[in-house]
Amino acid sequence: MHRFFVDTAPAERAFLTGDQARQVATVLRLQPGEHLLLVADGTEHEVELQAVATGQVTGKVIARRVVTTELAFALTLAVPVLKGDRSEEIVEAATQLGVTRFLPFTSERSVVRELTSAKRGRWAKIAREAAETSHRGVVPSIEGLVPWSALLQMLDRPIVLWEEATEPRLVEVARTGDVALVIGPEGGLAADEVALARTGGATIASLGRRILRAETAAIAAVAMIVGARDR
Amino acid sequence: MHRFFVDTAPAERAFLTGDQARQVATVLRLQPGEHLLLVADGTEHEVELQAVATGQVTGKVIARRVVTTELAFALTLAVPVLKGDRSEEIVEAATQLGVTRFLPFTSERSVVRELTSAKRGRWAKIAREAAETSHRGVVPSIEGLVPWSALLQMLDRPIVLWEEATEPRLVEVARTGDVALVIGPEGGLAADEVALARTGGATIASLGRRILRAETAAIAAVAMIVGARDR
Repeated sequence: MHRFFVDTAPAERAFLTGDQARQVATVLRLQPGEHLLLVADGTEHEVELQAVATGQVTGKVIARRVVTTELAFALTLAVPVLKGDRSEEIVEAATQLGVTRFLPFTSERSVVRELTSAKRGRWAKIAREAAETSHRGVVPSIEGLVPWSALLQMLDRPIVLWEEATEPRLVEVARTGDVALVIGPEGGLAADEVALARTGGATIASLGRRILRAETAAIAAVAMIVGARDR
Repeated sequence: MHRFFVDTAPAERAFLTGDQARQVATVLRLQPGEHLLLVADGTEHEVELQAVATGQVTGKVIARRVVTTELAFALTLAVPVLKGDRSEEIVEAATQLGVTRFLPFTSERSVVRELTSAKRGRWAKIAREAAETSHRGVVPSIEGLVPWSALLQMLDRPIVLWEEATEPRLVEVARTGDVALVIGPEGGLAADEVALARTGGATIASLGRRILRAETAAIAAVAMIVGARDR
C-alpha cells in the first residue's frame, strides 16, 4: 500500500491536494475503492479512496494504527555539507535506518561552506521519500546550517567520531538514552575543534582502526548504534 | 605516507613498474629519499626511494610492520549485482569497514543478471583503492558471479538478511567465528529462495523494522557486525 506523509492527521475524511493528489491520480493512477496510507506524527491512517482527480483526492479513513518502526530513542546526526551528493546519500541511508534529526554544519576543513535553500530543500525531499519507502512514522527534520561552535551548543553531550581517537569505541559509549552523533568533513576535524568539543562535554569516540570516508563513517555510525540498541 | 598493495612482498630492495611506477613518478611526483609503504599479505614494508622514473621505481626496504587494521575473523559479503553503480558503492564502503571477500550472485528477482569482466575489474579496482585509503592489510577478493543455488553451496552457515524476517536480529546470531552475510537484490529474495537457504543450514535474520534499500542494507549489516565484534 502506498504511503504519504501529511502535515495534519485526517479526521473521518481525508483530502490530498497539490503534488500528492497529482501523484495519486496521474502517476500511481489509483482508483476509487483502492486504499492508501496517510502518515502523520507517528500514526498511519488507512484511507479508502472515494474520488480521484488531478487536483484533489478524497477518501474515508477506515483504520488508524500507531507506526511501530520508530526507534525508542532520539537519534540526531550532525553531518557536514560534503562535496557532490554525498551528504544526500547520508540523509537517504540514515533516514532509512531511523535518524530523527539532521544538523548540517561547517567546520575548519569543510570544503563546502554553504547549504543553499535549494540544497536544503533537496535534503528534505530525500528524507521524506526515504521515510515513506522505509515505513517510518515521522520524517526527520533538517535543521539550518551552523558553524562548529554553534553546533556544540545545540547538542546535549554529543559523541564526536574522530579518526585519530583509538578509544572508546562508539558502541561502548551510547548504551542508553538519546544519542547525538557528529561526523567530520572530508578532511577531518581539526585537533582544536575536537578539544573545544571535549571541553564542552562531548565524548570523543572511534569507529575502529580503519580509515573511513565521511559518508561511510556516517552511515556506519548510525548502523552500529541501531544494531546495538534497536529491539 | 602513500600506500600501495603489491602482489609479492619485497625482500631488501623494492621495485615498482607499470601503473604504480607511473603514479609514483608522474602523479605523486615522489623524489629519491622520500618514503612509501608497500603492503603485501598483511605486512607493510616501508621503502625509502632510491631511483624514480616513469617506467621503474626502486627503493630500499627500511622497516616491516604487521598491519593491525584487519578484523580478527573472516567477513564474507554475498551481494547481488545492482542497477547503476550501487554494487560499487557497497564494495567501496564494505571494504573500508573490513570485508574480506565479495561473492556476487544473481537470484530470481535480480534485475541485472550478468557481471561483465569490465565491471568485475571495476569492482576489483574499487576494492583495492578502498583498501589502500582505509589502511587495510589485504585487498578483499571479488569472486565470479554465481546463481543462488550455487551461492548457498559455497557458503558455510551463511546469514541471509530478509526484510520479511522479524527475528532474530542480525547482531544476535553472529557473535563468534567467521561470518558470511547475504543481501537480496532490489526486489528482495523470493520466499522459495529463502526456504532453500534455510533447508541448507542458513540462518534467516532481520536488520530491523524499517525497510532498507539493498545498498543501505549491505553497508548497515557489515557495520552492525563490525560494531559488535571488532575490538
